[in-house]
Amino acid sequence: MDAFTEKQEALVTSSWEAFKKDIPHLSIMFYTLILEKVPDAKDMFSFLKNFDGIPHNNSTLEAHAEMIFEMTHDSAVQLRAKGKVDVANDVTLEYLGSVHVQKGVIDLHFMVFKEAMLQTIKKAVEDKWSEEMGCAWGIAYDQLASAIKKAMGW
Amino acid sequence: MDAFTEKQEALVTSSWEAFKKDIPHLSIMFYTLILEKVPDAKDMFSFLKNFDGIPHNNSTLEAHAEMIFEMTHDSAVQLRAKGKVDVANDVTLEYLGSVHVQKGVIDLHFMVFKEAMLQTIKKAVEDKWSEEMGCAWGIAYDQLASAIKKAMGW
Repeated sequence: MDAFTEKQEALVTSSWEAFKKDIPHLSIMFYTLILEKVPDAKDMFSFLKNFDGIPHNNSTLEAHAEMIFEMTHDSAVQLRAKGKVDVANDVTLEYLGSVHVQKGVIDLHFMVFKEAMLQTIKKAVEDKWSEEMGCAWGIAYDQLASAIKKAMGW
Repeated sequence: MDAFTEKQEALVTSSWEAFKKDIPHLSIMFYTLILEKVPDAKDMFSFLKNFDGIPHNNSTLEAHAEMIFEMTHDSAVQLRAKGKVDVANDVTLEYLGSVHVQKGVIDLHFMVFKEAMLQTIKKAVEDKWSEEMGCAWGIAYDQLASAIKKAMGW
């Protein structure tokens, strides 16, 4: 892949900071966008499956969204520094891979999550949004997804 | 706490290496010991709850055990290097805390896991086992458990 630029890293970092300022609302938006596209995904998350709709003020849901966005931000930082995503902890990546297999994750889910992430970041930054920012998040996400898919044995 | 010594770190590292050589058997032993003490814990793990008994050749179960033992080994390395457990990723620790709360983890579970871990390491190293080795694992585990409990808001 082409080099991940300093500007791309800065775009991901500034919008990740914006996301972190309103996790309660933005995390609900994120899972709402996902369930609109794939309602079945509800049963894949312990913090969604026993609720009607998306639970509000649910710390597990918020922490889960924060973790996914942070892993993607970390991937952007690594792409800039090393030219590749290097998940620090192989054992954790292996576990993540096996959990994704166990939950029945398919490629469509990765696409839906990516689209929901871009929409959520767009909402977080409002008029600071640009296609370039979306593209930088998309690259970081795709590279992280590749690492997880590899751990899934795809 | 007293300083974690170079010898203690070496004891944890050598036995962690022994554990990694036979994860399929040792991970089954680990969850078997846990369910003997707290049968209800079965419902806390996605890789246990839909099975009669402990599933064999289950990659999620194996990866989960490997992750717990690795986090404890990492804690031992950090205790030696920094004098405290420093979970690298605050967001992950926060997620881990909220998942433990959501699953209804109580202090008894932490105790049962510790005992099961020590027995599993004892089996892994066989005649290389010593009380000193068990004590080093116990300290590393307790410090990691403290970090998780703090993230749980205890």
